[in-house]
This record gives sequence, structure tokens and C-alpha cells, in this order.
Amino acid sequence: MIIDCHGHYTTEPKDLHRFRKEQTAAATSGGKMAMPSRATLKIPDDEIRESIEQNQLKLQRERGTDLTIFSPRASGMGHHIGDESVGLEWSQICNDLIARVVSLFPQNFIGVCQLPQSPGVPPKNAIDELERCVNMGFIGCNLNPDPSGGYFNAPPLTDKWWYPFYEKMVELDVPAMIHVSGSCNPAMHTTGSYYLNADTMAFMQLILSGLFKDFPTLKLIIPHGGGAVPFHWGRYRGLAQDMKRPPLEELLLGNVFFDTCVYHLPGIELLLKVIPIDNLLFGSEMVGAVRGIDPRTGHYYDDTKRYVDALPVSDADRSKLFEGNAYRVYPRLKAQLAAAAKGH
Amino acid sequence: MIIDCHGHYTTEPKDLHRFRKEQTAAATSGGKMAMPSRATLKIPDDEIRESIEQNQLKLQRERGTDLTIFSPRASGMGHHIGDESVGLEWSQICNDLIARVVSLFPQNFIGVCQLPQSPGVPPKNAIDELERCVNMGFIGCNLNPDPSGGYFNAPPLTDKWWYPFYEKMVELDVPAMIHVSGSCNPAMHTTGSYYLNADTMAFMQLILSGLFKDFPTLKLIIPHGGGAVPFHWGRYRGLAQDMKRPPLEELLLGNVFFDTCVYHLPGIELLLKVIPIDNLLFGSEMVGAVRGIDPRTGHYYDDTKRYVDALPVSDADRSKLFEGNAYRVYPRLKAQLAAAAKGH
Repeated sequence: MIIDCHGHYTTEPKDLHRFRKEQTAAATSGGKMAMPSRATLKIPDDEIRESIEQNQLKLQRERGTDLTIFSPRASGMGHHIGDESVGLEWSQICNDLIARVVSLFPQNFIGVCQLPQSPGVPPKNAIDELERCVNMGFIGCNLNPDPSGGYFNAPPLTDKWWYPFYEKMVELDVPAMIHVSGSCNPAMHTTGSYYLNADTMAFMQLILSGLFKDFPTLKLIIPHGGGAVPFHWGRYRGLAQDMKRPPLEELLLGNVFFDTCVYHLPGIELLLKVIPIDNLLFGSEMVGAVRGIDPRTGHYYDDTKRYVDALPVSDADRSKLFEGNAYRVYPRLKAQLAAAAKGH
Repeated sequence: MIIDCHGHYTTEPKDLHRFRKEQTAAATSGGKMAMPSRATLKIPDDEIRESIEQNQLKLQRERGTDLTIFSPRASGMGHHIGDESVGLEWSQICNDLIARVVSLFPQNFIGVCQLPQSPGVPPKNAIDELERCVNMGFIGCNLNPDPSGGYFNAPPLTDKWWYPFYEKMVELDVPAMIHVSGSCNPAMHTTGSYYLNADTMAFMQLILSGLFKDFPTLKLIIPHGGGAVPFHWGRYRGLAQDMKRPPLEELLLGNVFFDTCVYHLPGIELLLKVIPIDNLLFGSEMVGAVRGIDPRTGHYYDDTKRYVDALPVSDADRSKLFEGNAYRVYPRLKAQLAAAAKGH
């Protein structure tokens, strides 16, 4: 089985966008406009089915992948928009929609949730929604290290500020993908710099901390191939060494994983050369940041399976990358798949 | 000749630190403490000589490089500290010190200046200092895309806000290295994430703009191997394509250059594979972010020449990387070297 650990529902039915537009307008109107009612949302099963069949499911089949670990559109989380109550309602709606996708296509998708984070609001306030989603069968969450939307003014992920949330993650045995949302900073393009910069920032925060001494079983996925990290692996090894930190393997590679969302062969080649195979999860983030076909190859830029297939990886390693590591990183995955196979 | 395009004076005589400490204390005391007088600075030639001979010059000799394009310590620029007048005095002092290094070692160092930038202050206010430095023989400048020190709240480099400064750069025929200073953001480690994130951000800003249509001869160097960019080259090619921008070669590779400050062989290998040789400048940033010896190789992490030497690069390409490209990117370099050789 080939498991894609990084997919977002980026082809949502249009009424979701209508709702969010009205919600955003109300949230930013200073009380002048009314919040839309959740009951107005009209998203029939057929629309969900079509949006998936024509896009993610079609691409799964074409590319030969089997299962996508699926969460709401990352750029749509918009944690900087509105207050905590707006964020909570929006998260619940988006997560419920993922639950519906999973229930319609239980063999092909499994849920990861968005969290109701807001600038300045303690992450522990997101615990209830995490629990609700895990009870619906979700196996992980997307944790935003910068709810400001591009100004990086939250405490580092290693600050005690985040600890109550990590305690719950550990208790529920779910990992987090560290993933920012859309940028509202005109200097910081969402998919071209913000995502990668948050990944890079997060990794360096982890080097500086004893987070995994405090939470030995906490698991974090750094997406987009780890941002700049593998390309600068020597810098990180050297910085850790200069600071008298343990080697990276010992310091964090028991807890930190990178996906393969790197959209060209030389990048994937570097990733597999530098990062231990046990720390890699296959991912494509399709349908996502880059939607075109590379004229040099004739294939989609984000068809990351092709890059992996082109490299001389042993069968054992390939199996870890495509499947085995995912069971380790997402401990609830196997039971959920078994339940889905039984038709639960 | 082997030209290292990226060196900072990170081994400054101690009285410079004393001055800066007092200056910072005064600037942040709300008028309670007096500014130190520039006349109190005691930095004899012998101290400068020793600080260079024992460090950068020693390493040049050991590694077999000849000339370093040399600027003040990047993390020390501290554009977020104090107001514009504080920044101006500090820039002048740091640049004058570089001029003294160059006059003591004219065969081995050539100057690039720090600029007096401050959050919210128009970049055009840095023009006088740029001109002053060029008149002293400097051949370029370090331009900070985020004077806030880690919150990324300046207008993008492609905003008209920066244009008067670019006009002067073009007039003087000097390039800028895009280089942030030290981070005052607890979430953003200076050399482990801030530098790389600013590089990545800048590159994406350039993709989105028509900057080089407005300034066809403007030259920008993105240091640290371009941040995350070469590792994600497919992402950038794909994003440009999705946005109907011209191919990257056409859009910006006539104007944008990356250095080789990537501290392991697989990273340099990727860099040389992905980025056209005409867009690469040899650089090490020594003595800089990573000072240790890699136990896997027995050599300094930042001895980037060894990585280049280990790769199968043609003599013609090697010559471009080590020397030829630098003459193109720094048009004033040749004349300055000729003047130095004549003992001017």
C-alpha cells in the first residue's frame, strides 16, 4: 500500500467558500454584519463525491497511490481571521467535512484535523476539538506554529505555552504536522515562502530545546521536505555541535519526520541521501501548491512518487517510505484502516 | 584567483563591542543614559591586523582562497536597535573598520558595506552611506529585507519603497547581497532559520514582480545557497508557471545570484546541479555561523571550497564559480583590485 501523508481538501464544494466569505466579512466588520448560520451550509454528498472523484481520487489512481492522510485546506485555516469563536466554528465545519469525505471514501482517505488556534490564544484551547476529531476517527492534527499569518510572533513550539496541547497529543497518540496557514503578510508568499519558512523555523526551534526529553513519544511531521533543512543539513549538524547539543539523530530524529513534498528529482534525491529513511514519509500535497505539468518531464510537478520511483532505493526502504513509517508515526492508522475494511 | 564573495568581520576588536553595548544601552534607556562618543573608540591597527591574521587570513591560506569580499558582521548590524541616527553612526563605524581592514590587507579583502536601515525608515535614507562607502572603494552593499529583526513586516523588496535605493545602486554599479541581521524574535534563530527564511522570502518576492524590467542591470545576491530555493527549485518553476510568469531563467536569472554557503557535500552537489553555473558565486561566510569541524570529514563545515573541489565540475565552470562570475556581479571589483595591486 502507498500512503500519501500530506493531502488537503483543496477542491471543496463552493458553498463552503460562500460561508467562509460571509464569516470573514462578519468577523472583520466590527459587529456591523451578522455571522452566517452554520445551518445555511448546503453541501450535498454528491458534491463532495464529485469534488473528490474528479481530483484527488483520480490522481491517486493515475499515480498509483492508495490512501491519503487528508486534512482541510491548509491555506484556508486562516487562524488570524476573527476571534476564537470564529476559529472554532470554522474548524468544526472544515473537520466535519473531512469526516464526510472519509466516510464516503473510507478506503482512500483518513482524517487529520485543523485546530481552532488564534493569535495569543493558548493552544490548550484546541484540545476539545482535537478530542472530538479523534473520536470521529482522525489520526492526527495540523498544528500552526504562527497563527498570526506571517509575522512569526507566537512563542516557539518548544515553549511551555504549547505543552498542555502536547500532553493531549501524547495521551491520544496522535502526531502533528507543523503547518502554517495562508499568509496575510504581503512580504511572505503563502506557498512560495511562508510554508517553507515555518518548516525551517520549527526545526531549528526543536534543535534548541529539550522538548523530546519532556515528551519522548511526541511525534512531529515537518512538511514540504522539511523546508530548507535537508539542503542545509550540514549547517544544522554544525550548529547543534557548536552549541554542544547531541547529534541530530539522538536529539530529535526519534520524534521528527519529513515528508517528500519536494517537486523535482534532484530535491528528492538530496532528501533521501541526507535524511535517514526511517524519518521520511511519502507525501505529495496534491492537489496543492503547484498544479502544473513540468514541461521538462511531461509529468505533474507534485507527482512525487515518480521521483522516488526513479531513485535506487531498496525494496525494504521503499516500503518504509511508502507505508511502514506511516504506521509508526500515526499509531491510530492501522486500527482505523481495519475498521474501514470492516465497513465501520 | 579564488574569490570568496561572502565574508563578515566577525572577529572584531573588543572595543567595538564595548561601544556597541553602550550605544545599545543608551538607545534603549529612553534618554536616561548618554550615547557613547565615537571618539572613545580605541582600535589600533595592530589589533585589527591580529584579528584578521589569526582568523580569516589564516583560513584563506589554509583553504587556498585568495580574496574575500568583506563586510561588517551581519548579525551585528542590528537595524532594529535604536533610531535612524543610532543606525547611521553604527553603520559608519562598522564600514570604516572594514575600510581599515582592506587598507591593511589590500590583496586579500575588498569592502562591502552595511547600510543604515531602520524599521519604517525609507531605504533611500541609506543612499548617502552607500555613496560614501563606494567612494572609499567598496564594491557592494548588504541590503536587509527585514529591519525589524525577525517579524518580516517591511514591504517586499519589489515594492516602490525600495526603488530610490535601487536607482542609486544601478547608478553606482554595485550589487546588493540580501542579508538580514540578528533576530530579536525568540521564535526565529538567527543563523538556523532567520537567514535562510529571509533568503527564501526574497526569492519568491522577485518571482512575483517586474523588478528587473524596471531595473535591468540591478544585481542581487541571495546568500546561504539561496535559502530553501535550490532544494525546492521544482516548486518555484511550477509556481512561476502556474502564475503565468516567464521561466525563472528569463524572469530573474539575469539578475539574481546564489552563493555556495551550504555546509555539506550533498547540498553543494544539488546547488550545482540545479542552478546554472553563471548564477553561482563561491562563498563560505567564514568565520561565521558554523565554526566547528565535521567529524564525518575531519574538515570545517564551512570549508565550502572542499565540496566544490570534490565535484566533477569542468575547468571553465570552476573558473566562473571561483572568479569569473564575481567580476560580472561586482563590476567595480576589477578596477579596485588593479588599484590595490598598484599600491593605491
